[in-house]
Amino acid sequence: MQPYELTLAAAAEAVAAKDLSPVELTESVLGRLDETEGGLHAYATVTAEAARAAAARAERDVLAGRHRGPLHGIPFALKDNIDTAGVPTAAGSRVWAGRLPAADSTVAARLATAGAVLIGKTHTHEFAYGLITPGTTNARHPGRIAGGSSGGSAVAVAAGSAVFALGTDTAGSIRVPAALNGVVGLKPTYGLVSRHGVAPLSWSLDHVGPITRSTLDAALVLDALAGRDPHDPASIALPRTHGAYGSSTDLRGLRIGIPRNHFFDRVTPDVEEAVRASVDVLTGLGATAVEVEVPLTDYLLPVVWGLMGPEAASAHEHHLRHSPDLFGEDVRVLLEAGSLLPAGDYLRAQRARTVVRQAWRELFGRIDVIAAPTVACTATERGQSEVHWPDGSTETVTDAYVRLTAPANVTGLPALTLPIGLDGAGLPIGLQLIAGELAEPVLLRVGTAYEAARDTSASRTAYRKV
Amino acid sequence: MQPYELTLAAAAEAVAAKDLSPVELTESVLGRLDETEGGLHAYATVTAEAARAAAARAERDVLAGRHRGPLHGIPFALKDNIDTAGVPTAAGSRVWAGRLPAADSTVAARLATAGAVLIGKTHTHEFAYGLITPGTTNARHPGRIAGGSSGGSAVAVAAGSAVFALGTDTAGSIRVPAALNGVVGLKPTYGLVSRHGVAPLSWSLDHVGPITRSTLDAALVLDALAGRDPHDPASIALPRTHGAYGSSTDLRGLRIGIPRNHFFDRVTPDVEEAVRASVDVLTGLGATAVEVEVPLTDYLLPVVWGLMGPEAASAHEHHLRHSPDLFGEDVRVLLEAGSLLPAGDYLRAQRARTVVRQAWRELFGRIDVIAAPTVACTATERGQSEVHWPDGSTETVTDAYVRLTAPANVTGLPALTLPIGLDGAGLPIGLQLIAGELAEPVLLRVGTAYEAARDTSASRTAYRKV
Repeated sequence: MQPYELTLAAAAEAVAAKDLSPVELTESVLGRLDETEGGLHAYATVTAEAARAAAARAERDVLAGRHRGPLHGIPFALKDNIDTAGVPTAAGSRVWAGRLPAADSTVAARLATAGAVLIGKTHTHEFAYGLITPGTTNARHPGRIAGGSSGGSAVAVAAGSAVFALGTDTAGSIRVPAALNGVVGLKPTYGLVSRHGVAPLSWSLDHVGPITRSTLDAALVLDALAGRDPHDPASIALPRTHGAYGSSTDLRGLRIGIPRNHFFDRVTPDVEEAVRASVDVLTGLGATAVEVEVPLTDYLLPVVWGLMGPEAASAHEHHLRHSPDLFGEDVRVLLEAGSLLPAGDYLRAQRARTVVRQAWRELFGRIDVIAAPTVACTATERGQSEVHWPDGSTETVTDAYVRLTAPANVTGLPALTLPIGLDGAGLPIGLQLIAGELAEPVLLRVGTAYEAARDTSASRTAYRKV
Repeated sequence: MQPYELTLAAAAEAVAAKDLSPVELTESVLGRLDETEGGLHAYATVTAEAARAAAARAERDVLAGRHRGPLHGIPFALKDNIDTAGVPTAAGSRVWAGRLPAADSTVAARLATAGAVLIGKTHTHEFAYGLITPGTTNARHPGRIAGGSSGGSAVAVAAGSAVFALGTDTAGSIRVPAALNGVVGLKPTYGLVSRHGVAPLSWSLDHVGPITRSTLDAALVLDALAGRDPHDPASIALPRTHGAYGSSTDLRGLRIGIPRNHFFDRVTPDVEEAVRASVDVLTGLGATAVEVEVPLTDYLLPVVWGLMGPEAASAHEHHLRHSPDLFGEDVRVLLEAGSLLPAGDYLRAQRARTVVRQAWRELFGRIDVIAAPTVACTATERGQSEVHWPDGSTETVTDAYVRLTAPANVTGLPALTLPIGLDGAGLPIGLQLIAGELAEPVLLRVGTAYEAARDTSASRTAYRKV
């Protein structure tokens, strides 16, 4: 096994024990990047020299007894809409071509303080306004899309050209590409991770979170990111207690809600089967499955589009007015449409969201976590624009991807995707777990239990491990 | 002195000591109501029989040793936009004529639990959308307006037909009438007091709070009202600790910000003189006056109107569509204008508010409280629509009243008005104190210190006590 293949937790343990040097780890990741990048195009900018210098500092610190914690010396990538001082940050847009931020975003600063080593900035759909990542290839299949908008981050983590990465998620943009590339993605509770220095798309739906190779890894990154930031008006305070979950596989007392509506409608058979099999793994660990009716599902997508359109148009108002032609056609049309919406429609979406949130809050009085597919189908082919369902209906690829992830943005609730197997074409399938407000510990407990059970049972079952 | 003249604190002490029966107190207040109501028109509905029954129950409870706290047996009034089960609540609108709510608002329920005795519902500008209260007369002068929109509540407390009252405040509607009628009004921190069961005007600016005869009285009512309510999405949790301020007049260490801009611009000389004299009282108690520049004042009124227009139109959308003619002309025009605003303008107001809030947060790093006039001029004459200033400018009465109170709505910060004297026409002048987020204790400390100093010095100075 090469160092670049390690999980964050395993690499951190080896670094702390001085069995693995940050320099060796970083060189391994950069080497893997050289091997894979020509085919995958995950990175917009690679900061190899700065990474080598940071790794050398991290090594010196470890040898001098100054170990900063689990992210110390770990190579990572940032989505290109997250500011880094002096490192190009263009958010995949010609509007920001050549832009060099003067200061780090709060999350970049927190990761630097934790001793992590920045490898580069990853491709995104322009200003994160879309569910694909043009130009980036799925890490598991060269003919398939990476998903988006955090496609570069998910592909880098899946391919081994970063140990972990950050993405942003407004309607599913962390979880969709994580699921399509077979890695873990966590969208935290709204406000738990600062968005200061991150290009806004729709500020009342935007989240920043980790993409990793295991649930424990996601917990370790969340620990470094979470916490009050006065520069983000939505930021909330919370003690940092996400990393301490161990690997207990005892889920007795846990109530898993299995949606009888919405989340299994128009889902491919391979995806449904894999998700239901993963629920069996969880109930085998002692959890109780409870069938639930998901409330007000008809409101979900109208709320997302009703909020995102005007907020995105407002966030990009200046450039939309002064240099509209620099936007890609798809994004420019969305921004222009958003700018035309009446305030009454926007407020109707806001009020509907409030009603949806209250209904979900009541739902989480009866269950601890929802288990559902992350996306209705695995990675589509490049250039494919629609998905055709057996019931005769047709859906855009965007709607098919956003339909099951958007609820956690509307409600602000934490949601985790983790890989649970492959479909008939060998493409990864994601299990989505959604928990109540600030119940990240529940998500992380369930995710780690599932992974531990899978890892110990993999040798004696036909279960296809990613 | 008649029982109806007592402050809440004095009445509560007498009730607890069994020196004053809730029945005797309630009869005194109802008697005063009969004397004054013909001239003042403070009440939309008087619930005399229910009040007598509640007072009798309160008396029995006291005699049986079941004393519920400082509001036990205290007669109070609610603004007519605050729901009371089975008691007419029309918010001053023909749209709601004859409406009998099925349930209490959260604040009405909390006051009932605290043992307070509802006397009736007080007049308001229609749906609280205005700074006057048509039909209600100023408690100090028959030719002057009561101010609004909580005019009935302020007049009732000033006249003695309620010991305390609740109002609502979206741009100044508690503080303006409290100042114009010479009583105390408190607009708490946004989210501290539930709005569940209160007719919305502009939900991101709406507040509920007490109108009383002293600062300590306001603290006692706030204690009963404050606290988390899951039915109000903006509700926040806070320990109830507002009542414990005693009457220390030592203000050493307190930094009072005296605005050099905005708050003393276009203010009548009597008002300015009285406010500056009250600041001298506070510095005489040990506080330090610090001159401050109030940030981003040009944004304040555009933010208020940019938020209130669309939110009010959205809140009243159903009736605006189906029975527009039931609204008064003034309110209907405002609602129709609000419904036409583009989402981009609303979002510009939202974003400007965020910037203003951050700037004020920084300001309150350097000071503890701002001291300023509550309103630029005392009560205007009935029918007067404009105010003419010595600099030659003219302003609508609404703008003159809202200009100095709206900042605390935009920022969500707590603000207290207390009476500090009379102008040359014998009309009350209000001192406005604004503190940082959840710094109600600071406001209440300063207010009680001021009142204690005024009461002890009243006999030996020329200071004109209200």
